[in-house]
Amino acid sequence: MARKDKPRRTRAETPKGFRDYFGAEVVERKAMLDAIAEVYHLYGFDALESSAVETVEALGKFLPDVDRPNEGVFAWQEDADWLALRYDLTAPLARVYAQHRNDLPTPYRRYAMGPVWRNEKPGPGRFRQFYQCDADTVGTASVAADAEICMMLADTLEAVGIARSDYAIRVNNRKVLNGVMEVVGLLDPSNPHASLLERGIVLRAIDKLDRLGEAGVRALLGEGRVDESGDVAKGAGLSEGQIDIITAFLGSAKNARLLLSEGVTLAEREKGAERREKIDAAASGWNELICNELKSIVGDSTQGQEGVQELEKIAELVAIGGYNQNQITIDPSVVRGLGYYTGPVFEAELTFEITDEKGRPQRFGSVAGGGRYDDLVTRFTGQAVPATGVSIGVDRLLAALRAKGRLGDAAAGPVIVTVMDRDRMAEYQRICATLRQAGIRAEVYLGNPKNFGNQLKYADRRGSPAAIIQGSDEAARGVVQVKDLVLGTRLSQDATVEEWKENPSQSEVPLDELVTHLSRLLK
Amino acid sequence: MARKDKPRRTRAETPKGFRDYFGAEVVERKAMLDAIAEVYHLYGFDALESSAVETVEALGKFLPDVDRPNEGVFAWQEDADWLALRYDLTAPLARVYAQHRNDLPTPYRRYAMGPVWRNEKPGPGRFRQFYQCDADTVGTASVAADAEICMMLADTLEAVGIARSDYAIRVNNRKVLNGVMEVVGLLDPSNPHASLLERGIVLRAIDKLDRLGEAGVRALLGEGRVDESGDVAKGAGLSEGQIDIITAFLGSAKNARLLLSEGVTLAEREKGAERREKIDAAASGWNELICNELKSIVGDSTQGQEGVQELEKIAELVAIGGYNQNQITIDPSVVRGLGYYTGPVFEAELTFEITDEKGRPQRFGSVAGGGRYDDLVTRFTGQAVPATGVSIGVDRLLAALRAKGRLGDAAAGPVIVTVMDRDRMAEYQRICATLRQAGIRAEVYLGNPKNFGNQLKYADRRGSPAAIIQGSDEAARGVVQVKDLVLGTRLSQDATVEEWKENPSQSEVPLDELVTHLSRLLK
Repeated sequence: MARKDKPRRTRAETPKGFRDYFGAEVVERKAMLDAIAEVYHLYGFDALESSAVETVEALGKFLPDVDRPNEGVFAWQEDADWLALRYDLTAPLARVYAQHRNDLPTPYRRYAMGPVWRNEKPGPGRFRQFYQCDADTVGTASVAADAEICMMLADTLEAVGIARSDYAIRVNNRKVLNGVMEVVGLLDPSNPHASLLERGIVLRAIDKLDRLGEAGVRALLGEGRVDESGDVAKGAGLSEGQIDIITAFLGSAKNARLLLSEGVTLAEREKGAERREKIDAAASGWNELICNELKSIVGDSTQGQEGVQELEKIAELVAIGGYNQNQITIDPSVVRGLGYYTGPVFEAELTFEITDEKGRPQRFGSVAGGGRYDDLVTRFTGQAVPATGVSIGVDRLLAALRAKGRLGDAAAGPVIVTVMDRDRMAEYQRICATLRQAGIRAEVYLGNPKNFGNQLKYADRRGSPAAIIQGSDEAARGVVQVKDLVLGTRLSQDATVEEWKENPSQSEVPLDELVTHLSRLLK
Repeated sequence: MARKDKPRRTRAETPKGFRDYFGAEVVERKAMLDAIAEVYHLYGFDALESSAVETVEALGKFLPDVDRPNEGVFAWQEDADWLALRYDLTAPLARVYAQHRNDLPTPYRRYAMGPVWRNEKPGPGRFRQFYQCDADTVGTASVAADAEICMMLADTLEAVGIARSDYAIRVNNRKVLNGVMEVVGLLDPSNPHASLLERGIVLRAIDKLDRLGEAGVRALLGEGRVDESGDVAKGAGLSEGQIDIITAFLGSAKNARLLLSEGVTLAEREKGAERREKIDAAASGWNELICNELKSIVGDSTQGQEGVQELEKIAELVAIGGYNQNQITIDPSVVRGLGYYTGPVFEAELTFEITDEKGRPQRFGSVAGGGRYDDLVTRFTGQAVPATGVSIGVDRLLAALRAKGRLGDAAAGPVIVTVMDRDRMAEYQRICATLRQAGIRAEVYLGNPKNFGNQLKYADRRGSPAAIIQGSDEAARGVVQVKDLVLGTRLSQDATVEEWKENPSQSEVPLDELVTHLSRLLK
């Protein structure tokens, strides 16, 4: 036993940027992840739980000549190695696949869910530990794998409770973007990996179309732009001719979207049984329309044409799979920031509106994204292995379900069996056991029973639907009092005297009818 | 984009002592944890997911004057603080309770499950990241809370698939052990916290009764003991008189157990409908018997008598709750290593036998343990808060379920729709979608389809129950071939030619009967 010095008070705090999750928060997230895992499993994906700790070398973000690894991960030294907490689920997948590739099937479909850690500056709603939920197919170049991920993503969103009309999975292809770059002279097909600062600026500008509008994007493509706060964003310095081509590329999407939405709006004015069919028919022009536009814009860029063909194939596969073009839609403005994407990229957007902090209506926005990346395991094995996958933003999707009121009653507390008579604890336990055997969540009050008011306060704090009361008088008559706490709360807020009389929130129930009574009450 | 140097091959390895979990391993553990969580929830316990990272100060195992924290945890420095991965779920509970106590109900029943990390030397089957699964009740001194945990533990073991006859929850009380220490003069009730080296040696010796037998324990209580390998274990140096008292204490349990098992054995020879009742009646003598023995051994130690009374109360509560005394049983030899227990302690033992590595039958042993500890949050708040809880050894319980064949078919692979004709990919996807809509796990083969043998090898590697084959001929006739891979494997191992003919492992099925056919086959 350690020597006891005068104890110093310890601070009871999570480290900065970390937090705890209580009760319903845990249960709701778990229910959502369970629903997602079920869809992934149904699609033939296998679970993988890799270790949370990796060598910094395997994570591969850091330079070997720096003594302490860069910021961004939580890392520590052990003997000669640096270890770190994983910062996502893709880097570990690469390591696992390289390590176990001889034992894994090809292709390898895997899903993974769990916490990841980022050593970043925390901010409001931005934590240094958070959940990711990924599905990837490693070892096949087939565009059918990309299409499958898109369809699975649609099924997943619906499985967790997002209505079909409330989301769109927007699909683009990095090869098409590269084709446009070739056309404007920012990419040399004979030396595609040559790094060009301008290309990054252009991709980021395209990504901002929704926010900045055409004029803002044009400014970023040209001389740069000063935003409202006075900050200067450096431009790509393109010529007017180059900018026109990119604007046409973006405009084509915009035009196609307008044409489409006009068609859909007309169809929506229809009445009767065929209304839905007409809307769908109007919408179904989109993917073909936009692919034709893109074909003409990428001109004779081989990569660009290949990219459009892949999009057409995806469009065909998802259409035959029964997904309409509002659910899965080709959209040239999708970029996805990460440098490593090499083919199709996709993003799931929730299309319903919420009000932002200033009370303005806003689209909910992106909850998942992914794409094809072919260089993942190269640095382990020396070989390129094609892969494609998606990552769901667990916290944002949870927030969306909360906003749509789709989170059920995970917060429902247990029925509380109160303690009127400390000597009859065993009897109270027995009542509880009976309730549990019937699947009713229940507990005996185990605090100090002297003050009965405290017991009801406790039930209130737990969000209990009902409290059971049995004194010696009730026990002698084989009955209990059942206090309906939900009704009680409602009545105490806005009931008239008549309602109080007609809906007594407390009733006497024979012990052998308690389960039946509570089952009815809990509905 | 980073400058590309000639790539150096990166080692694809988990850090030493860490591992990955694949497919069925993940799903089986999850199913078990889900079943446990359901019982915990039913008992009114609320989920808590605390952050994996804590300040070393909050974990509280380390000395402030050492620059780098002791071994045992994975820790790193951030600004002035040391951060570390949690090494269990109890230390974080203390921090959470101290931090949030004004917002939490009293008592606070919480469960938690998740990985913990120990910076210890890894060994065979011993990893540095593993799961724990805890339930604790904080803020009540009532022994009803301890009894509740024991009953919940029994329900939990049965919920995950351990038969009632295959486990025993053994309950003791630290106060009884302290009472024995008082009687032999190793504990001064007026100065109970005075540290005595001998007490630790005695507790450890008692804990080893099963393994060393009475003679071995006596040696440890006296002069010490040399084991088979020649290692010397220091003894407590007690007198013969002191040793006799402790031996009597242990012997009382042994005697009571013998008496009991004789009674039960006799009852087991009975036939007919009352056999079970008679066995239970024989077993029900135990708790009373052993409590009487203990009362006489702790003599006039106030703490000892209090401990026995608590055990009697637990025995009464669990008996009224309908648990028999084979399920929850008072056992004076239970010690539980951790220094911080202050009252009832319990341990769940699986009583069935497995064969050890040398082929000898052995009891499976302990899969869960816990007890009452009252000083948990003192160093945060300055106040003692009574608490009691249990921790389930997730990996051992999983191993037990595996040994008992209770792990279901989590490993079942998906139905594989093979690709005979690459141009008809969309049609194969559609077949898959139909199967999934019927809840059948299915996928299209997405590897290179050229070599059909590879597709069947892939199905084999995935553990697929069936493969679907459709060439253009079958497509024209609206049928598919269904290859029953389970039957096929069995036939290829031991079938006669006649059996092959009678049980064709491949059959032609009309497309619109495929779901029905497969549903039957999967049963």
